[in-house]
Amino acid sequence: MRQTHIFGQPLSVISYAAVGGKMESEGPLGDCFDKINDDPYLSTDTFEKGESKLQKEAMLHMMDKADLSPSDIGAVFGGDLLNQCTGTTYAVRDLRMPFLGIYGACSTMAEGLILASLFVSSGAAERAAAVTSSHFCSAERQYRFPLNYGGQRTPTSQWTATAGGALCVSAKKRPPYVRAFTVGVIEDLGVTDAANMGAAMAPAAWSTVSAFFRETGKMPWDFDMILTGDLAKVGSRLFCELAERDGINVRENHADCGNMLYSFEKQDVHAGGSGCGCCASVLCGHILPKIASGELKNVLFAATGALMSPTVSQQGESIPSISHAVWLSSEE
Amino acid sequence: MRQTHIFGQPLSVISYAAVGGKMESEGPLGDCFDKINDDPYLSTDTFEKGESKLQKEAMLHMMDKADLSPSDIGAVFGGDLLNQCTGTTYAVRDLRMPFLGIYGACSTMAEGLILASLFVSSGAAERAAAVTSSHFCSAERQYRFPLNYGGQRTPTSQWTATAGGALCVSAKKRPPYVRAFTVGVIEDLGVTDAANMGAAMAPAAWSTVSAFFRETGKMPWDFDMILTGDLAKVGSRLFCELAERDGINVRENHADCGNMLYSFEKQDVHAGGSGCGCCASVLCGHILPKIASGELKNVLFAATGALMSPTVSQQGESIPSISHAVWLSSEE
Repeated sequence: MRQTHIFGQPLSVISYAAVGGKMESEGPLGDCFDKINDDPYLSTDTFEKGESKLQKEAMLHMMDKADLSPSDIGAVFGGDLLNQCTGTTYAVRDLRMPFLGIYGACSTMAEGLILASLFVSSGAAERAAAVTSSHFCSAERQYRFPLNYGGQRTPTSQWTATAGGALCVSAKKRPPYVRAFTVGVIEDLGVTDAANMGAAMAPAAWSTVSAFFRETGKMPWDFDMILTGDLAKVGSRLFCELAERDGINVRENHADCGNMLYSFEKQDVHAGGSGCGCCASVLCGHILPKIASGELKNVLFAATGALMSPTVSQQGESIPSISHAVWLSSEE
Repeated sequence: MRQTHIFGQPLSVISYAAVGGKMESEGPLGDCFDKINDDPYLSTDTFEKGESKLQKEAMLHMMDKADLSPSDIGAVFGGDLLNQCTGTTYAVRDLRMPFLGIYGACSTMAEGLILASLFVSSGAAERAAAVTSSHFCSAERQYRFPLNYGGQRTPTSQWTATAGGALCVSAKKRPPYVRAFTVGVIEDLGVTDAANMGAAMAPAAWSTVSAFFRETGKMPWDFDMILTGDLAKVGSRLFCELAERDGINVRENHADCGNMLYSFEKQDVHAGGSGCGCCASVLCGHILPKIASGELKNVLFAATGALMSPTVSQQGESIPSISHAVWLSSEE
């Protein structure tokens, strides 16, 4: 069973945009966002509607930057953490674009990028987009406690980013290129703590990244960056340990979106960032521009998702996790 | 913006299986199921875990019928109605297969079939699968009322099927063939009644089916069957009316999975069947075998999904709906 596919003709990410909230603007990547929303409601009356607006804004900025209109894009792949992925559906509803809903929790941006690339590569459309978001307030009340409850957060807990990201793939020949991808297998080593997603997701990240290395013959040093998202502090340590056990050293060029979005010194984010919007905004706001400019040559982007459900967790189940990887490059 | 893609080289659906519950076994298609589960818990302790087992069983039967093992399948596209699509994730976790999660509510089987076909057509794998399910008891308590509440059901309400379906696509040359697909645009004409999904989904079904006709130059009489799912009684009437307004008569060969799975005379299903498992099991248990044998030559399968969320509905939003269409044929 081969998990990796190398594109005969690499695809191009022709446009990308990231939007964020106040916390995100105050972090080390604050300048990378196309738009910052200080209001957590984004001028709506609920957090969920606000989250939906994050995705709409990300899509509009992404299209604007490449002078695209909704009718130029043949399909949008999108999803988010909210039940029934309403962040995406209500955003895409207004844009009137062909839509294929996906669910991969925080791995959504990698899954969307893979499927948008396949869609274009198969000739089904000239351009396809991927979009996702997360919102601290809507995620906390859905997955853990309502904010008003004021529950204390444990040291392993991560801070769900209030952010959205969108990108568009086409067959044009310009960097960043999408050269290959690896589809993940669900891994579940029995973690049941919804406040320790890094530990739940690390085995999935290593399972996918090691499959990529095994199947392509590449090694960690072939990449400027092995970018997981969002393992944060706890998961990143475990990821590097799992690699080491297999005799591979990834410490030198491993980075994690959950460790990059916020300042551990100045911001109270415990183990680091998380949420679909975390790696989506780090990718679209920070990494893709650096690949486009050639500052980064090869990046293995391995987004990770904890496919946890409050309902089934309460029934005693552990947290299944998944990770999908995409090889992004400044060279064809 | 073109929504339809015609495969240069049609794909083949090489295996398919349907599993159901007691109600489904007592309907007119009762004999079409590969397995019937009289126990709504499927020997687990919760409805959600039972639903997950429906998908696992559907996958195992599907693989068994074509002598396939999990390692023969390059990717599984799956999703369901449960929050975080846990019906799928916990089923696929046990099978150890590369997995891409999708969310399209009751349109999931069409979306999965489209993406599995694209995956194979682009050369990413030799075989790709699609799987989905629904469960009356888990859906009712998540979307409407817990069953113990004993709420009365309105005449427009539909009965969520306790069923699962799975299929596998490959490039082999044998019927049923997947010849083309149309990706839907979200339609929302303002229906807010979660007990009238047929009305919410009918505009999406016609939007997609009319795009297919417009873009391919085909007409309703080119098909033995225009098979929507699951508009049921109310939505089917609206679908035919919407077509008529555009000057197209679909009444003669329109059928709907929600009208086929149960007996309106003998079973108390109000407007008819619904749920991801309804059109998935009708397709995999009843339609695909008839296309394989040549009894049906051309079927336009247009599954429909109401992308509704209890959370956002309670915030005053209407129900966005989507439909994806697949042209299935006994001829290449």
